[in-house]
Amino acid sequence: MLDYQAPLRDMQFILDELAGLERIGELPGCEDASPDLVSAVLEEAGKFASGVLAPLNQAGDRQGCRLDDGQVFVPDGWQDAYDQFREAGWIGLALPPEHGGQGLPKLVATPVWEMWFSANMAFAMLPQLNVGQTEALTIAASEEQKATWLDRIVSGEWAATMNLTEPQAGSDLAATRMRAEPAGDGRYRLFGQKIYISYGEHELTPNIVHLVLARLPDAPPGVKGLSLFLVPKYLLDAQGEPGQRNDIRCIAIEHKMGIHGSPTCTLSYGNDGGALGKLVGEPHQGLKTMFVMMNDARFNVGVQGVALGERAYQAALDYACERVQGRDVVSGESGQPILVHPDVKRMLVSMRARLMAMRGLLYTAAGWFDTARQHPDSEVADKHRRYVDLLMPVAKGWCTEVGNDLCDEAIQVFGGMGFVEETGVAQLFRDARVITIYEGTTGIQANDLLGRKILREDAATLRELIGDIRATATQLGDHDRLADLAKPLGDQVALLDETCAWLLEQRAETADLYAGAVPLLHLLGTACGAWQMARLALAAEARLQADDGDTDYLRGLVELARFYMATQAPQSHAHAHAVRRAGRVLTGFPVAAL
Amino acid sequence: MLDYQAPLRDMQFILDELAGLERIGELPGCEDASPDLVSAVLEEAGKFASGVLAPLNQAGDRQGCRLDDGQVFVPDGWQDAYDQFREAGWIGLALPPEHGGQGLPKLVATPVWEMWFSANMAFAMLPQLNVGQTEALTIAASEEQKATWLDRIVSGEWAATMNLTEPQAGSDLAATRMRAEPAGDGRYRLFGQKIYISYGEHELTPNIVHLVLARLPDAPPGVKGLSLFLVPKYLLDAQGEPGQRNDIRCIAIEHKMGIHGSPTCTLSYGNDGGALGKLVGEPHQGLKTMFVMMNDARFNVGVQGVALGERAYQAALDYACERVQGRDVVSGESGQPILVHPDVKRMLVSMRARLMAMRGLLYTAAGWFDTARQHPDSEVADKHRRYVDLLMPVAKGWCTEVGNDLCDEAIQVFGGMGFVEETGVAQLFRDARVITIYEGTTGIQANDLLGRKILREDAATLRELIGDIRATATQLGDHDRLADLAKPLGDQVALLDETCAWLLEQRAETADLYAGAVPLLHLLGTACGAWQMARLALAAEARLQADDGDTDYLRGLVELARFYMATQAPQSHAHAHAVRRAGRVLTGFPVAAL
Repeated sequence: MLDYQAPLRDMQFILDELAGLERIGELPGCEDASPDLVSAVLEEAGKFASGVLAPLNQAGDRQGCRLDDGQVFVPDGWQDAYDQFREAGWIGLALPPEHGGQGLPKLVATPVWEMWFSANMAFAMLPQLNVGQTEALTIAASEEQKATWLDRIVSGEWAATMNLTEPQAGSDLAATRMRAEPAGDGRYRLFGQKIYISYGEHELTPNIVHLVLARLPDAPPGVKGLSLFLVPKYLLDAQGEPGQRNDIRCIAIEHKMGIHGSPTCTLSYGNDGGALGKLVGEPHQGLKTMFVMMNDARFNVGVQGVALGERAYQAALDYACERVQGRDVVSGESGQPILVHPDVKRMLVSMRARLMAMRGLLYTAAGWFDTARQHPDSEVADKHRRYVDLLMPVAKGWCTEVGNDLCDEAIQVFGGMGFVEETGVAQLFRDARVITIYEGTTGIQANDLLGRKILREDAATLRELIGDIRATATQLGDHDRLADLAKPLGDQVALLDETCAWLLEQRAETADLYAGAVPLLHLLGTACGAWQMARLALAAEARLQADDGDTDYLRGLVELARFYMATQAPQSHAHAHAVRRAGRVLTGFPVAAL
Repeated sequence: MLDYQAPLRDMQFILDELAGLERIGELPGCEDASPDLVSAVLEEAGKFASGVLAPLNQAGDRQGCRLDDGQVFVPDGWQDAYDQFREAGWIGLALPPEHGGQGLPKLVATPVWEMWFSANMAFAMLPQLNVGQTEALTIAASEEQKATWLDRIVSGEWAATMNLTEPQAGSDLAATRMRAEPAGDGRYRLFGQKIYISYGEHELTPNIVHLVLARLPDAPPGVKGLSLFLVPKYLLDAQGEPGQRNDIRCIAIEHKMGIHGSPTCTLSYGNDGGALGKLVGEPHQGLKTMFVMMNDARFNVGVQGVALGERAYQAALDYACERVQGRDVVSGESGQPILVHPDVKRMLVSMRARLMAMRGLLYTAAGWFDTARQHPDSEVADKHRRYVDLLMPVAKGWCTEVGNDLCDEAIQVFGGMGFVEETGVAQLFRDARVITIYEGTTGIQANDLLGRKILREDAATLRELIGDIRATATQLGDHDRLADLAKPLGDQVALLDETCAWLLEQRAETADLYAGAVPLLHLLGTACGAWQMARLALAAEARLQADDGDTDYLRGLVELARFYMATQAPQSHAHAHAVRRAGRVLTGFPVAAL
């Protein structure tokens, strides 16, 4: 079994130095997030993650879930862990105080969720749905709906789901067929099938609240005809308690490559007269609300990338420090752990560098999110909102791709022991494979980045961001100990700049441009990673100058930045090349020759 | 269930145009390999692969293997498939006629083995061991041993294994502990444990012939004290038939991420007085012989990279042509298969380009292998032997890494359907994960490339190879329709040249250099791929000029080369950068900061 220890020092450093925790704590509504409280929260979460969730992870993978006569059974230990999780109030950490949450900033919740996903991703997917659903209901639900449902979602008394996908409607929600017919009493009867519903059915909570996309009888075709419905597993009785069973059946669960502890359900609605539900928000406006929930989920899936990568890194490092094999290539000595081999050390340093780059980007983005929401100066708030919007597909797309790479690399450190299941590292690799897919594949993220986030606004926000990265490169150039990092970061800026100009010039060549969308996403991710690593190095050097902190640790951060610039950053060249050159070839490529 | 159709047209094109099948067929001893015979062999193999092996692949994965009281049971259907495979004579395809083989060149066997691995890798690992063992015994065994064992190994009547790994001796065979004590009758008694033995135990054949590395009592320490023993599961009786059971027990089989149909056994030797075996070759010279078997296995694992990639590509292409989802980004039309989406097309073209690059390299190398072995001019033979030696770690290391990437990309094309097991593409991804590990990890291959294959001979062969690639770049430059490919290939040459010079300059900095070994392997692999794609384009253009062949197909090959140059080739820049820059940072990186 793999141990997990929350990387509190790294988390705290990035919160303080890159994401501006102190400034966030000064925003209106964020005052509770004092440094002391945040440290205490992280420490407690770390204990819970290591002590309660992590030990269940491998057993959950082995046992998996079971469907028996419509009932879904999750792995042993899930119930107890969920009860503890709920009782400790972890679900409401960053949810509205008016519904029982603690209202802490997203910046604080981000490392905490990273821990949950590291410790046990299949489990953590359950409470994560409550968070997303709360965001959606807060925006769109009526006051009565909020009063009825939100407290119990925030507390975790009841579980939550999001029901989007249908067999013919995956990435393409326009193809949604689920019907909702007025029941005559203000409610609706839903008919149809939803697939890939995480925790769509289970016995962990006395009720499950489904948010479901469906079409009203008068709905226009396409995504503009989707309405959102709240459909509980059990209808509420006069006392507001779960009563009669609703007309929803779990008819199958998927046999998946990973996240075996998370039941992925096929739900059939309306086999017996229609599943009763209520409209949330305006008719035909469901997708907008669902996107709120989905955007939150996307960010969290990005966090899963760093979370799985972190656990894989910890496993690989432990193994590399213990496993004795081979001869030191320099001294010729044998009997030493494999960490002495330059290639093994390369893999570990490379993993750690990318972890810090991803974490830097995600936590910084979480801080932007809080700033966008709470900053009193609307111009500042707006800038950060635009940054969040621009980089959401990068946070999801790039961090999940890199997270997969890290799990892959961890297996490579383990060698043969990585391919057998007993060590547990194979599970991380299998679990991770879903994160570049669900909540929108990397291709979908990349299209969103290119079309909605860049071209639609003539790259205005991207240019602003490039300016910020350039400012950091200038800072490096002026620094007496980090000047060597200025050129690699400057190269990133130049590549982004040229690519951005090229995209705008070529905007009429739609097919060519979209063929380069994924390389573009990688380019921007790699460059943002380089930017964060540069900021990390600047912060670490400042601390070293001030003699504030563990010297080895701080020097290590600076060297991680150097390593990133030497190995990751140069890949931007290939990404930029692919953006500019591949599309033309691809568009003309004869499909018959595939 | 995934279909599989052998890509006969691609295979034949590369055999004819890149690997020089015609010239190979003119070598002494290779005369049987006439174009007609080769085509017939490929066609027959394709039928067997599609009709017999491919349909068992997914069921084999699901059922897996079972150990019961020392007996190992493989999946249903394996026995019948093996009997058919053996009876059809496939094992002996390229094995010596004096032992019942057909003696065809390795060049012909290579696409055939590609088919077996595509169709059912877990199954094909079994007969592949007979091939490797035959190579080893042919070189090292006594005439008596050959007479006793080889005919039955070549025919497949008996199965074969290679026993190297022990718990403390994985990549590091110097740590081997298995003991062999003289039994007094010319035989030896073996004691110890071997792990990760593919098909170490099963009931498919009446006997299993183990080749085992062990130490004689007077053995010097390290790899120079390893001797090779032939140890059968059943000792032969006076008639030469399997008689008494030898003292070898299968005490465990691994629970692995993939290749579930291939039992990975822990074998315990000598629990009851010692397993009786015979010395093969000279005492303490076992590793040399084992390396013959292992080198063959390494090449074949490289072939597994292209094989799994091919099957994944076929699956992804089929899915992309059938699955309807989303709207054409150019026309806005919906209702079309996802292949219309630029990013999906990008993934498929990218997969196909890399498949052809890998196949070009592997088949060309197989031709070099035949030339090295059979060419009457010793200078020509020697050059090709050196090319094979130089590129064996690239064929293994690079093709397995790329093969994994292709399986990963195929899942991405499938989206959510790729993560569930029913489609079968997840199995390819899980199966593929072992190939960068077994028969020497990518790191081991890279160290071999850098140390034994480049530095030890002052890069002499590498320089020769660079010269050949440069000549192809010149050819492109002179071509009226392919001149645009000259610069990208020329860039590869320049990067290789500079890197090569740098390696020799820096040779004293051992740790720095080895930290860049894997990037170096990727650099050389990517460049060799670019070289093969350039040759492919030249050959396809020549055919187009001569109006010889399907125009769409030939144009497609040229465009694949362009696509490779636009997307894969530029990655060499980052690899070369990592070789030259990362080592210094890495060597100085404080381990305490990991």
